[in-house]
Amino acid sequence: MDLKIPSTGQKRVVIIGGGFGGIEIAKILKDKEVQIVLLDKNNYHCFQPLLYQVATGGLEPGSIAYPLRKFMQEIPNGIFRMAEVRNIDVANQKVHTDIGDLQYDFLIIATGSTTNFFRFPKEVSSKMMQMKDIPQALNLRSYILENFEEALLTYDESKKEKLINIAIVGGGPTGVELAGALGEMRKNILPKDYPEIDFRKMQIHLFESADRLLGAMHPENSEKALKYVKNFGVSVWLNTMVTDYNGEEITTADGKVIKSETVIWTAGVKGNPVQGFSPETIVGGNRILVDEYCQVKNYPNIYAIGDVAAMLSEDYPRGHPMVAPVAIQQGELVAKNIVALLKNKTTKPFKYYDKGAMATVGRNKAVMESKGLKMGGFIAWLAWLFVHVTTLIGFRNKLTVTIGWLYNYITYDRTLRLIIRPFKNLDDDEA
Amino acid sequence: MDLKIPSTGQKRVVIIGGGFGGIEIAKILKDKEVQIVLLDKNNYHCFQPLLYQVATGGLEPGSIAYPLRKFMQEIPNGIFRMAEVRNIDVANQKVHTDIGDLQYDFLIIATGSTTNFFRFPKEVSSKMMQMKDIPQALNLRSYILENFEEALLTYDESKKEKLINIAIVGGGPTGVELAGALGEMRKNILPKDYPEIDFRKMQIHLFESADRLLGAMHPENSEKALKYVKNFGVSVWLNTMVTDYNGEEITTADGKVIKSETVIWTAGVKGNPVQGFSPETIVGGNRILVDEYCQVKNYPNIYAIGDVAAMLSEDYPRGHPMVAPVAIQQGELVAKNIVALLKNKTTKPFKYYDKGAMATVGRNKAVMESKGLKMGGFIAWLAWLFVHVTTLIGFRNKLTVTIGWLYNYITYDRTLRLIIRPFKNLDDDEA
Repeated sequence: MDLKIPSTGQKRVVIIGGGFGGIEIAKILKDKEVQIVLLDKNNYHCFQPLLYQVATGGLEPGSIAYPLRKFMQEIPNGIFRMAEVRNIDVANQKVHTDIGDLQYDFLIIATGSTTNFFRFPKEVSSKMMQMKDIPQALNLRSYILENFEEALLTYDESKKEKLINIAIVGGGPTGVELAGALGEMRKNILPKDYPEIDFRKMQIHLFESADRLLGAMHPENSEKALKYVKNFGVSVWLNTMVTDYNGEEITTADGKVIKSETVIWTAGVKGNPVQGFSPETIVGGNRILVDEYCQVKNYPNIYAIGDVAAMLSEDYPRGHPMVAPVAIQQGELVAKNIVALLKNKTTKPFKYYDKGAMATVGRNKAVMESKGLKMGGFIAWLAWLFVHVTTLIGFRNKLTVTIGWLYNYITYDRTLRLIIRPFKNLDDDEA
Repeated sequence: MDLKIPSTGQKRVVIIGGGFGGIEIAKILKDKEVQIVLLDKNNYHCFQPLLYQVATGGLEPGSIAYPLRKFMQEIPNGIFRMAEVRNIDVANQKVHTDIGDLQYDFLIIATGSTTNFFRFPKEVSSKMMQMKDIPQALNLRSYILENFEEALLTYDESKKEKLINIAIVGGGPTGVELAGALGEMRKNILPKDYPEIDFRKMQIHLFESADRLLGAMHPENSEKALKYVKNFGVSVWLNTMVTDYNGEEITTADGKVIKSETVIWTAGVKGNPVQGFSPETIVGGNRILVDEYCQVKNYPNIYAIGDVAAMLSEDYPRGHPMVAPVAIQQGELVAKNIVALLKNKTTKPFKYYDKGAMATVGRNKAVMESKGLKMGGFIAWLAWLFVHVTTLIGFRNKLTVTIGWLYNYITYDRTLRLIIRPFKNLDDDEA
């Protein structure tokens, strides 16, 4: 069945995914001679870099989510549909979705990435928590709080230890930021909420298989980040590969056994492509192979941008980093190239303008680097706050995040320690 | 199994329910010579009067929920346990919960109320939405938005009508406030979000079996409220009893048939008592019969307060109204009486100090009355805002609600139109 979308006689640009890349394209194609159709399985844009703050009770989900229909109000030549894409039919230039089929003239795949558990079988990975979307972040918030509630009930010290310990696998920005936030909570909040628990016994573990944290940043910043998280009392295990998890104990390649019922996997992401491409189009990291115009190799009129796209070059032999600026810049390029194509002008190849990288490690501490400049500590932390607030979409979100952070900073508190939808109970019911 | 709670040698006051009444007791017994144990099935206090704003995307759940553990930080002689009470064992002075048993010296039942569907069988009531807690309010938010998304997909005008129409049963404060908020959304927000839907065709129905809205208020205010909701385009059906609902059509006693897939039931609440009392203790409205000291008749050391308690008197032959001020005042009385009992002083009977009533009907419009004074319009609306913000618990909640309202007022917008946890899909999966 065809999706009910009126034709305007203009060329139709279908964008799959309302993330950073997808909405950038819509912004640039606004008022241009095309019909834009934006598809997303959610009705909101999610600001993923702050998911860990939702998981740790510092921010509300509504502060980092922005309604895509509100965004589309500014795009008069745009239409939004909440839809899950099943596959694409390249021969007939059609997208098949759970709500119907849709013809396209130009198709942009901006579907981002999902958690990559690599070699772990389902029975191991299903015992770990993820943090790639808002429901997962809320589940993690509920789960951690439910474990503390349960820890109060047991006389069994070994069981209690498993309930209050938290292990994070992966020392990239997400893992480091989450570890810092949890370290802060253990220091400033949890002992007041649970005076009956001895929080000196609570361990926060951070596992990283490489020899340093934040492998994408300069080694000096890795060192600083290591120092900061350690100061928050996090046990960092470098050169340590997690090889197994049974729901209670983590096993590492070098034979360590760590007890924890909470393991958060931040050690890998992979592209989240749509179905319908020939196998050779999907390359390493499950990403879609594109040329320097973000065009999918051998598929005219189809583009892929951001996390899901692999543009292999000398500078980036494994593709660009899976970060928001790449998605935004590729979105901008593709949108401008489509406009050029419609005017029979020449299109331009992509060149990534790397503004740098940053990561925060709890209160007053962050690391950043940009064009050879490296910085750590308080100034970097202020810069981190500024960049994240200004990148957020929507005035209300900027406002509520700023106020939330101010409140948290002044009071040393995070008041969103709410178990709105219990996670463990749900799990038990389903089992 | 006994719940792991250390004895302090003091008398133990167990409070079931962290609503308005329960937390009032804990506040007053703070630093007194008792051990307080607060039990609640959630780890947060919910400010129920603003649930309808969560359901309509105006406020975040975190703005009206307050962590009970944070509240208990101020009560050094208090302990909190997240627990669902199964029943009470009066003979042995024990509370049985899902996490273990607990001895009490004084027991206070402050378990509030639940939706009362009266004579409707489960197959009818299960098709209606409720709004008595945060998950229900979030489900309603998701459901309404999901229906609009679905309405875009159909060519069937009758189906579309059912999807976009909303019916509210019950013209009390909750029904009136919800109708006003929905009327505002239809006017200011929805046509921008869904330009493809003709919102002149969207009907908002409000059914009330009595001959006026806000039956607990003065008839003049009922008239004003009626005028206000009608101005927001709500179809009000007075003297109209809903007799059936099949998921698509509402039938009324006088033979009307109204099409809507969204029916929100706000027409009744009933007490939510715990199990373990003799049948004659539970009276009309499923409430626990108490004397003028809030003591449960024939059960020494057990008190019931707020919505769940029925204190029958000449002034209130069917018990006090199920509103927050009654719960707070009864909580205060019981706490003071317990202190008096411990000091062998005389206890005091309850006397309700009725401050009045108020209800808002959307932007700039409210009605209020207090001690013979009646008011409507803008001033009443400001008073409503002031009373609700000051009654909220926690500085951050007061702050975020104020800012949220300011934002909504200035922009005519509500930005929390988020389907974080789809409701219809969940439903379909379970079916």
